[in-house]
Amino acid sequence: MSTAPRAILITGANRGLGLEFVRQIVCFSTPPKYLFATCRNPESATILNEIAKSHSCVKVLKLDVCDFSSYKNLKENISTMLEGEGLNLLVCNAGIFNRIGFEDTTPEMMTAMYTTNVIAPMTLAQTFAPLLKLAAQKLPEETKSWRKATILNMSSDLGSVGMNDNGGCYPYRASKAALNMVTKTQSIDLKADGILTVAVHPGWVQTDMGGQSAPVTPTESIKGMLSVVSNLSEESSGRLFDFEGELMPW
Amino acid sequence: MSTAPRAILITGANRGLGLEFVRQIVCFSTPPKYLFATCRNPESATILNEIAKSHSCVKVLKLDVCDFSSYKNLKENISTMLEGEGLNLLVCNAGIFNRIGFEDTTPEMMTAMYTTNVIAPMTLAQTFAPLLKLAAQKLPEETKSWRKATILNMSSDLGSVGMNDNGGCYPYRASKAALNMVTKTQSIDLKADGILTVAVHPGWVQTDMGGQSAPVTPTESIKGMLSVVSNLSEESSGRLFDFEGELMPW
Repeated sequence: MSTAPRAILITGANRGLGLEFVRQIVCFSTPPKYLFATCRNPESATILNEIAKSHSCVKVLKLDVCDFSSYKNLKENISTMLEGEGLNLLVCNAGIFNRIGFEDTTPEMMTAMYTTNVIAPMTLAQTFAPLLKLAAQKLPEETKSWRKATILNMSSDLGSVGMNDNGGCYPYRASKAALNMVTKTQSIDLKADGILTVAVHPGWVQTDMGGQSAPVTPTESIKGMLSVVSNLSEESSGRLFDFEGELMPW
Repeated sequence: MSTAPRAILITGANRGLGLEFVRQIVCFSTPPKYLFATCRNPESATILNEIAKSHSCVKVLKLDVCDFSSYKNLKENISTMLEGEGLNLLVCNAGIFNRIGFEDTTPEMMTAMYTTNVIAPMTLAQTFAPLLKLAAQKLPEETKSWRKATILNMSSDLGSVGMNDNGGCYPYRASKAALNMVTKTQSIDLKADGILTVAVHPGWVQTDMGGQSAPVTPTESIKGMLSVVSNLSEESSGRLFDFEGELMPW
């Protein structure tokens, strides 16, 4: 792919899929003007900071996605940098995972995973909806929807009820099923503003989360997800796709 | 229907669908030996207490489903009353609802609804799984599965991602989608213990939650749901049905 969206925000950009997303996006022949790469501790995000040094579009910003009170300042900060332009792509990537089964699940785990994996993406979408709407308004003729305004929510096959045939992982499964619902609901409510949404299953990827025995490399996963989001249309908005572009059941 | 399960627990039994469930179950030609009817404030549950006066099977017990620390005592209390027998049917009925849209949803609302509508049913299932398992073991020859051991989670068509075509209701939709996932996951993990699970959409019912313009009466809704749960089998365990017995998409 050659031309990236003008302004992108991605959470959890210091490692794993978030970091790989940054790596690939800066290598577009026309990279974004702004790639806001957020993480909890920018000071220790060594690789991300290295990339930012050689790619001036990358702005490393501090964000703990569970600290909702900080969202307003982040948005104002980004809005100032955008100088009246909008945000084209919001990638809600930050998430947590565990393999807790029926007996060992606790209310605290359920709450923590829901907060990070569902409430944070929802609140990010609310916070940045005005900037996404602005982007869509500024580019009425743009045919590539992801260069207009899109929300990408990082989901999982474990969030597909229809594909669930081996149980377990209650806090995670429940959170991703809820995130899929949020994605679909947003696709309906934000359609009139020209904002598309998509939930994507990244595959089982070799990251800290997926472990080293995973069959998919971060390179393949992000390449696939970029293809999915760049091909998104009004018709396919609000769906769950895997990183290879296959539609998945809810 | 003539013979009820021997021991049933239902939450949120003081009004609406929970109360109607109690009303209909006590009228079975063979009512349950125990119908544990829980609610937050038994002292103000006037109608429920009236029913309990004339039907000795009804035991009104105090339970705030969000007070997880109280579950252990409730279980021990019920276990003592059961005198070595198990629990056949757990009806996770207590739930909350609002119609909050995209802009007005808050993290606090999301958390509150997830806690009541998802974490509580999950924690109830964990707490009572040993008694449900015991019931299933005691009745190996029973062909009516709901008289063995079943968990009924009160879901909603608003929790069906596939049926979502008008958006809104984020906290509620997300919670019920997650509850559907929990139901499906439990059906897999509890199968070996002989415990079935089902998520049921009660219809749009004339209750405090549904309002008086709703097309379905509590009588019709509960009659339908009793039919669904009484016809549940290993094959249909873990699915989402409406109160008329129609399978619903996730």
